[in-house]
Amino acid sequence: MGIVVQKYGGSSVATAQHIKAVAERVSRARGSGLDLVVVVSAMGKTTDRLLRLAGEVSRDPSPREIDQLLATGEEQSVALLAMALHAREVPAVSLTGPQAGMTVTGRYGSGVISEIRPERIHRLLGEDQVVIVAGFQGMNSLGDVMTLGRGGSDTTAVALAAAVKAERCEIYTDVDGVYTADPRIVKEAHRIPVISPEEMAEMSWRGAKVMHPRAVELGALYGVEIHVRSSFEEGPGTVITGGNGLEHLETRETLAGIVHDLDVSRVTLNGIRTGPGTLSRVFAPLAERGISVDVIVESGVKEGGADVAFTVRRADFAEARRLASEVSYALGGVVEGEENLGKVSVVGTGMLNRPGYAARMFASLGEAGIPIRMVSTSEIQVTCVLPADRVEEAVRVLHRDFELEERDV
Amino acid sequence: MGIVVQKYGGSSVATAQHIKAVAERVSRARGSGLDLVVVVSAMGKTTDRLLRLAGEVSRDPSPREIDQLLATGEEQSVALLAMALHAREVPAVSLTGPQAGMTVTGRYGSGVISEIRPERIHRLLGEDQVVIVAGFQGMNSLGDVMTLGRGGSDTTAVALAAAVKAERCEIYTDVDGVYTADPRIVKEAHRIPVISPEEMAEMSWRGAKVMHPRAVELGALYGVEIHVRSSFEEGPGTVITGGNGLEHLETRETLAGIVHDLDVSRVTLNGIRTGPGTLSRVFAPLAERGISVDVIVESGVKEGGADVAFTVRRADFAEARRLASEVSYALGGVVEGEENLGKVSVVGTGMLNRPGYAARMFASLGEAGIPIRMVSTSEIQVTCVLPADRVEEAVRVLHRDFELEERDV
Repeated sequence: MGIVVQKYGGSSVATAQHIKAVAERVSRARGSGLDLVVVVSAMGKTTDRLLRLAGEVSRDPSPREIDQLLATGEEQSVALLAMALHAREVPAVSLTGPQAGMTVTGRYGSGVISEIRPERIHRLLGEDQVVIVAGFQGMNSLGDVMTLGRGGSDTTAVALAAAVKAERCEIYTDVDGVYTADPRIVKEAHRIPVISPEEMAEMSWRGAKVMHPRAVELGALYGVEIHVRSSFEEGPGTVITGGNGLEHLETRETLAGIVHDLDVSRVTLNGIRTGPGTLSRVFAPLAERGISVDVIVESGVKEGGADVAFTVRRADFAEARRLASEVSYALGGVVEGEENLGKVSVVGTGMLNRPGYAARMFASLGEAGIPIRMVSTSEIQVTCVLPADRVEEAVRVLHRDFELEERDV
Repeated sequence: MGIVVQKYGGSSVATAQHIKAVAERVSRARGSGLDLVVVVSAMGKTTDRLLRLAGEVSRDPSPREIDQLLATGEEQSVALLAMALHAREVPAVSLTGPQAGMTVTGRYGSGVISEIRPERIHRLLGEDQVVIVAGFQGMNSLGDVMTLGRGGSDTTAVALAAAVKAERCEIYTDVDGVYTADPRIVKEAHRIPVISPEEMAEMSWRGAKVMHPRAVELGALYGVEIHVRSSFEEGPGTVITGGNGLEHLETRETLAGIVHDLDVSRVTLNGIRTGPGTLSRVFAPLAERGISVDVIVESGVKEGGADVAFTVRRADFAEARRLASEVSYALGGVVEGEENLGKVSVVGTGMLNRPGYAARMFASLGEAGIPIRMVSTSEIQVTCVLPADRVEEAVRVLHRDFELEERDV
């Protein structure tokens, strides 16, 4: 009998009623003859509430103690879900991350899974139990609990699916799949039935909130088929699969969709002297402060020095600008910045062998009179940085011009 | 340098403000040069809230999952207290029961400590850390968390004090010590400066709520000196000590105090045929149902059979009466019961070598016209079961007649 891993996020287990609904769904899946491992996040706003408490007792709480504190959120959810399953006569056992054999390394608050020892999970499945595992956590080499940081529960689910050789990993969330664009912006947007992990990862990095790219990439690495579904309604959702099988050959599309992100700001160092190590001098101080840099553009060297531009989240703008100013000053340049930006990306493996997507994108935006501040491309995506107040319009224009609404699904 | 174990109950850590106040107190104790192990309960009503959630998802939640759920309450408190200490520049590390080396056996929800491996605690103390341990929990042989049931946090503290050979165990609570009687009933009641563990255990079993008798008895067994103090104000509190030292010779009193309990009901089996095994037939079914029996009185065999009477909490009255009826019927007797009772006890090691305390107690109650329903005595206490509505009067009469208010403290 096949093993399936299911993952339910915080909004799916927000209240006792929600937990009972999840139990109902798990119970039905089990009734269809599957061995189930269920990964659960903390209830609704629990993590926020705990962080607020931490903020009340300390201005700068230690990462180890934050992890001790936050791990309890998932531990409560798993116990409650086990009880709700028992109430439906479904045998179930809850496990914390450490109990489930999740071994984690790295830093508190952003641990990475180093190993999973699934013996206890297999033994419990052999006893016909539904095994419920706390997401987002594992045990480090000191025997302490460590959380996995952003996307941790998705990552737990995908990693477990790989470790127990599950048929698939089902991610239940508050939307019913991945869309060609945000349906709140583009009314013609539609659900993507099948998407490659590479496309899904790009879409996640570029702004799609459905699944964390870290989990998508882990799934790609271990060949885990991931199904993104709604926890509130029935439906096939979106299947993320590498497609070495033929079953999705016809439904797979060349262009996956348009994603956007409204939280972008830009810092530019103009006219700096360049040489070996210049870029490292610019970006190392940002990395030390834990500031994530997204798009990076460097002009070639020209008269008057080179220009280097990069984007960061708006919350990091002031700090990034300050750090860039210090370096820029030392290199004879001038720093300039722009805060209210967004970005729009066109993502699809279809781009791989068909040039011209970038040119088509620039033409669409140009015709609509939307200014482009920066451009970044990779094999399967083109991203343009734009003024934030033009982003929604850009998404609609591109969705139309790339004919995403006309596809037959 | 000496080690001191401190324990703070749920009301002492009910809010972020309370936790900061505990951190302030711990910080001061540490400033006086002590190595500190701090045991903490769950915040205020956390345990009740979690039990309510459990009740919402299941009518009959499994004890293992209840323990998984409840253990998180203490885990949150210890992490928050560690953060609050860090905010005061006090190095501190929080440990769950399993991390602290608490090994537990028995049944979920009522585990008993089988072993403590204090290596990690000693190592952390050696690093000059305050070690904060989650009360009420430990790890069982399956690697799962198990809670200790009623009095569990007091028991954790006393057991840790024994394991690390602490100078003393300080129990911080919402009263400033143990009193000669409930000060809400007897205004002349005063704090007892020093009490023996035997007296304290009797007082706890007989109704004093300050400390759980289980923890008191463990302290007596391992010679742990226990200090009961208020977490809200300064003061010496009450010292529970075996007194093999001479320091408390003069302050130790012959009669400790008067305790009472308003939650008593009585079941009597009248005229049953007795023989070997009769008492076992009466009490085994109660034990199987987990019903605690307190006072037991058996009349000698007389014409028409023997009478057996016992008391239980009011919540168990109906069930206990039903079980007694079944046995009584088989033994040719008749069951009778009385629900609204209470009990009053006079406790003190001074009784050991001075007979007459029981007679004096009966005389006092008799003069006041208070009826006595049952009597139970041991070497250091006399307990009378009375109508519940006469209990407060009985406490005042006995406090006066035994001249407890006249002692010079």
